[in-house]
Amino acid sequence: MARTEQAAAEAGRATLYEQVAARIAGLIEQGTFAPGSRIPSVRALARQMEVSVSTVLEAYGYLEDQGMIEARPQSGYYVKARVPSPPAAPRIERRMLSPTTVTTRDLSVMVMRDTILMKHVPLGAAIPNPELLPAEKLSRMLSAEARRHRTESLSYDFPPGCKPLRVQIARRMLTAGCALDLDEIVTTSGCLEAVNLALRAICRPGDIVAVESPCYYNFLQAIEAMGLRALEIPSHPVHGMSLDALRYAIDHHPVRACLVVTNFSNPLGCLMPDDHKRELVEILGARDIPLIEDDLVGDLSHSQHRPTVAKNYDRKGLVLLCSSFSKTLAPGYRVGWIAPGRFQEEVERQKAMANVATAMPTQLAIAEFLANGGYDHHLRTVRRVYARQASLMADAVGRHFPEGTRVSSPAGGYVLWVECPEYVDVLKLYGLAIGAGITICPGPIFSARGKYGNCIRLNAAFWSPRVEQAVEILGGFATEMRG
Amino acid sequence: MARTEQAAAEAGRATLYEQVAARIAGLIEQGTFAPGSRIPSVRALARQMEVSVSTVLEAYGYLEDQGMIEARPQSGYYVKARVPSPPAAPRIERRMLSPTTVTTRDLSVMVMRDTILMKHVPLGAAIPNPELLPAEKLSRMLSAEARRHRTESLSYDFPPGCKPLRVQIARRMLTAGCALDLDEIVTTSGCLEAVNLALRAICRPGDIVAVESPCYYNFLQAIEAMGLRALEIPSHPVHGMSLDALRYAIDHHPVRACLVVTNFSNPLGCLMPDDHKRELVEILGARDIPLIEDDLVGDLSHSQHRPTVAKNYDRKGLVLLCSSFSKTLAPGYRVGWIAPGRFQEEVERQKAMANVATAMPTQLAIAEFLANGGYDHHLRTVRRVYARQASLMADAVGRHFPEGTRVSSPAGGYVLWVECPEYVDVLKLYGLAIGAGITICPGPIFSARGKYGNCIRLNAAFWSPRVEQAVEILGGFATEMRG
Repeated sequence: MARTEQAAAEAGRATLYEQVAARIAGLIEQGTFAPGSRIPSVRALARQMEVSVSTVLEAYGYLEDQGMIEARPQSGYYVKARVPSPPAAPRIERRMLSPTTVTTRDLSVMVMRDTILMKHVPLGAAIPNPELLPAEKLSRMLSAEARRHRTESLSYDFPPGCKPLRVQIARRMLTAGCALDLDEIVTTSGCLEAVNLALRAICRPGDIVAVESPCYYNFLQAIEAMGLRALEIPSHPVHGMSLDALRYAIDHHPVRACLVVTNFSNPLGCLMPDDHKRELVEILGARDIPLIEDDLVGDLSHSQHRPTVAKNYDRKGLVLLCSSFSKTLAPGYRVGWIAPGRFQEEVERQKAMANVATAMPTQLAIAEFLANGGYDHHLRTVRRVYARQASLMADAVGRHFPEGTRVSSPAGGYVLWVECPEYVDVLKLYGLAIGAGITICPGPIFSARGKYGNCIRLNAAFWSPRVEQAVEILGGFATEMRG
Repeated sequence: MARTEQAAAEAGRATLYEQVAARIAGLIEQGTFAPGSRIPSVRALARQMEVSVSTVLEAYGYLEDQGMIEARPQSGYYVKARVPSPPAAPRIERRMLSPTTVTTRDLSVMVMRDTILMKHVPLGAAIPNPELLPAEKLSRMLSAEARRHRTESLSYDFPPGCKPLRVQIARRMLTAGCALDLDEIVTTSGCLEAVNLALRAICRPGDIVAVESPCYYNFLQAIEAMGLRALEIPSHPVHGMSLDALRYAIDHHPVRACLVVTNFSNPLGCLMPDDHKRELVEILGARDIPLIEDDLVGDLSHSQHRPTVAKNYDRKGLVLLCSSFSKTLAPGYRVGWIAPGRFQEEVERQKAMANVATAMPTQLAIAEFLANGGYDHHLRTVRRVYARQASLMADAVGRHFPEGTRVSSPAGGYVLWVECPEYVDVLKLYGLAIGAGITICPGPIFSARGKYGNCIRLNAAFWSPRVEQAVEILGGFATEMRG
């Protein structure tokens, strides 16, 4: 339901085909069109809604990518059986809303090591599919820019970093409704570095950082490494962080900063609605608590609508917005950025202390791609592909995993959160998977409280028959654990 | 004297012209050839020493670069008047050998900001001269490698990082007498990042790190940012860190790590002799104290002899050797490395947490340059140029700064340490310099103890008539302070 409402709420800004798709999706979710039933033909719907046939085709194509409907040859479009259900909303226990020391270090070292097992089926690390990256164009731009800026590309580029790139980032962020001046942006070596700089600029050892639960494991590791404590706030699989729980937590603990992936969080893939973003900024702003906002996959929405960021509602300079081009263009270029608000000077200092500057040639290449590479066109393609692959993988999990398994329905990005029945021990499953030549990401590394022992995160970016087979194998292992 | 002895000690490994140069330098230092006097003609010396005329010409060219002799047209070679003297050996006061909290933060923020005043005469930051970087060749290699490794150059390159680069680094380090396996090397975004990762892998807040005094200011800043304390060990302007003082310090304080620039330290430019390096490793090894060794400018020796590293004497895996190609090839590429010994796993984890990986295209370009770019030929050129420029700048300081000013005589790199008479207040000088369009690096940021209030560091890499004029202006300001 909520997804549909959100889609409707966004309809004002949506394109025509998205409006049509949202209408049909609503009817499916309300049960007007039941699973397995036929929906109106393309011509019929075009007549009914007074739109063109091509608009309906586009809308149906989109709903297919989302895994909501399927085309049957010579017959028409049908509502798919939506196995499996999404994870349930979290139960919020107040006694659990207290800071914890992170102790998942050994586990994360193991997982990090295994991510470089290159011959394994790569369902573990959240890396993008290299085949979907614009390799040809980027390497051409890398060359051209290195020639064009021969001396600059060789020289130090002290914080705030490469100006042409900052210009392009400021322009791009307007499409997310966020007006940033180029001097408010500091370039970094990827988004994780941006988050690290933000934490270092704000926190001192012993400080408490409120995070989502489940929480991206590298954030927990960074918190541990800096001697901070994590306060895990449950996240709803559709709306993201529970703001009630956050309110309770900051009423009862001296929270120094809050770290949230507002758009398509990792691992849940949830999208915080705009009004929640505004509320989040207000709740924290009232107490002058900085918000570190990670918008790493904001551009990888499964709809063609790019959601806004919490930074958009920031009036006090308290939001430090972090992102990069690692998921959309080139992970290996290590180009990210931060808009650190009132922490600008300290973030620049932390950047200079960490590694002086970000590599110049890759910054120039990304800037050129944003300016003249057809980034929007590129995004339209990858958004559809990832939406489709996430949906196909969710279906496969539904077919192969034991009954009672739930799967997230991400609104963007390409990772799935799989909640197995309680009897499934995912650390055991992890070992079996590695033995079978498959990497996965075990749930417990997403919590400092030892939660998610029955959950795994899967990367759908490499969807292929080989990956489908791997899902089947994993499902078999999980099923056998029923004992 | 010491420089000559050292040169003689290295004679076994030195080329013939270096042996000839060391002999003449010894005679000059002993006073056999007094300042202003004529030394033997090229032909006469060739006969006396039974070497070729071209060998003597090369030796005399080298001594000219070192600023020891000068050619006078139609007359021959003369010993230069060696104004000014090098800084005196430090007085070692035991009560000063205790840990200090770093408090030079505001000063370093100011200096960092001023380094980007691009229109100023750049004597502040220790950046290399872009005109001496192989821009043409590197940008060609950047392009070629990006095309050749289209997919890899786009993808994550998890620690330990780019293999072709590690292969080349291992080969290069053999020329410094240090045998490293490529799997013992982790690539980083520059040398400063390598040092940061090393400190993070070893230290916890409150720990004590022994450093040289004067100490590169970014090290002090990193120590402050991690909540560590610095224990400053006086450095001799020729031999580097006082090992007696270090022994006393570790006898009296729980030193957790020792951080030393063994070759051409910043700011003194001193070169720790091989036997001191061995002793340093032994002193620390006896107590299992890790040594973080910075060899950033090791390749920029003013002789053509590349000194070895302390890591060469490491039998316990306690030395973490850090370096980069920022001073020799391309600061803007941000390519460095660390050989972390027994801390390998933890350093790799810290790297993954900091920014996942180092930019791939620039790593591939540097690897290709090391393999096929003529790195040795390039080094031969820049070594001579920097030796000559450091010597010319030292002369200019001698001419223009007030009486009693002392200047370092760096054995490598391109920075000079200028010790003015006590009455010179370099923070005041700093302000005057900025006002006159000149950046300099004020001495107090090189100490957590507020030392060096009468010292400045100058970058000689950009030597030109404009720089000479800037030195004259600075000398004028300093002279006026006599009051």
